[in-house]
Amino acid sequence: MISVVILGAGNVATHLFKAFKTTETINVVQWYNRNSDSLNTYKNEVAITDDLSQLAEADVYIVAVSDDAVKGLTKKLPFENRLVVHTSGTVKISDIDKKNRQGVFYPLQSFSKSAKLDFANVPICIEAIKSEDYHLLKDMAIAIGSPTKKVNTDQRKVLHLAAVFVNNFTNQLYRVAHEITESEGAEFDLLKPLILETAKKVQELSPYMAQTGPAKRNDKKTLNNHAKLLTNKHHKEIYDLLTKSIQHTHGRKKL
Amino acid sequence: MISVVILGAGNVATHLFKAFKTTETINVVQWYNRNSDSLNTYKNEVAITDDLSQLAEADVYIVAVSDDAVKGLTKKLPFENRLVVHTSGTVKISDIDKKNRQGVFYPLQSFSKSAKLDFANVPICIEAIKSEDYHLLKDMAIAIGSPTKKVNTDQRKVLHLAAVFVNNFTNQLYRVAHEITESEGAEFDLLKPLILETAKKVQELSPYMAQTGPAKRNDKKTLNNHAKLLTNKHHKEIYDLLTKSIQHTHGRKKL
Repeated sequence: MISVVILGAGNVATHLFKAFKTTETINVVQWYNRNSDSLNTYKNEVAITDDLSQLAEADVYIVAVSDDAVKGLTKKLPFENRLVVHTSGTVKISDIDKKNRQGVFYPLQSFSKSAKLDFANVPICIEAIKSEDYHLLKDMAIAIGSPTKKVNTDQRKVLHLAAVFVNNFTNQLYRVAHEITESEGAEFDLLKPLILETAKKVQELSPYMAQTGPAKRNDKKTLNNHAKLLTNKHHKEIYDLLTKSIQHTHGRKKL
Repeated sequence: MISVVILGAGNVATHLFKAFKTTETINVVQWYNRNSDSLNTYKNEVAITDDLSQLAEADVYIVAVSDDAVKGLTKKLPFENRLVVHTSGTVKISDIDKKNRQGVFYPLQSFSKSAKLDFANVPICIEAIKSEDYHLLKDMAIAIGSPTKKVNTDQRKVLHLAAVFVNNFTNQLYRVAHEITESEGAEFDLLKPLILETAKKVQELSPYMAQTGPAKRNDKKTLNNHAKLLTNKHHKEIYDLLTKSIQHTHGRKKL
């Protein structure tokens, strides 16, 4: 049995708590938040505290707080030589105060408060200084059904950056498509199967191999027709830059 | 029974042929291509010709050729007053020679040669001049299990443009993410569940509601950290433009 204390009350903390509760090998012994009111919903399921000096003993302390708060909070922990991990994509492992054993347990997925989450679809990026800590974190990830990967701080940072491209930026392209279709009273809903197919395609093929369309083919007639349709200057900027990007990737000179 | 002649041998023609063959209400009576060799695989399943003067009589002629060829090919058809439709997202309905009854049967999806296609995930955008032609085209779409929508030429053009954003441009963001992760020896594969989740999220929520991340929150510390990580000038251009776009959509001044 792995005993865990969770610190923080955000989406990651809450989803991890719920996932850990479903396992037979992880025991959440305590849940801390600066303001314990936000944990009231769970007070019948787990011991709750807002007092760092009252933290229970555990195998792992999971610090799932905002990036800026990791350093300060781990400094205030009233014990030494225990395993303390954060869950952030951008915070260095060394930002965890070094009086404890440092680690990272970064779930690479988009978390919303309400939506149900299947941890089979949440790769956990693990970093630890000591080999036994790495294996304990890996066992935790396996217990909740997640794939795992050893990822160092530099790799984690670029994964977080790349995640912004495939999640936030991609979603913004969906938004622009929504604006474009609405401008002519066409239905954005008609694009939803294509959105899903585009995401499914790169589960098997590399994005390089999956690419199609007028930019890749350098189909000037279609590119010109699209340019005429793009009345919104801002949409046109995105169109031009991403067309250039595709042609850069696929060697427009050769096409 | 609806009798159909298909003209053209590309991906759309081939996928439609295969889908029609599975139905009990559509009979493909003939398949034409300028070069009939490319249809040799199917010669035991359907009558094949490369001679326009030999075209069989049918309820619908589906012209699934390249955009540029629609006008010329429909002009050369040796009959009048029959239903002739193209399958293009960008060609006007009036580009079909007016000696025949004009229509459009535009499947809004990304077609690759090899991949199997479930037409339940392919919305068909239908346009026709005559009401009975519209209903015949709708019955054809229903027979292959596709959702259908009445879409005029202007709407179809913006749908095709918007499809470039959600398909080609999104795929290029995946490609950039691939380049970014590879640059630090991190695994692009770790992003695949997030890619799928991002596409699934907008099946239910609007892209506006689905947006998250540092650009929307105007989280300057993360934005600055990402700027430092972006050593590729071209990736940085995309990062900056799409960050600006998200902040424009979500009113950065208020955040």
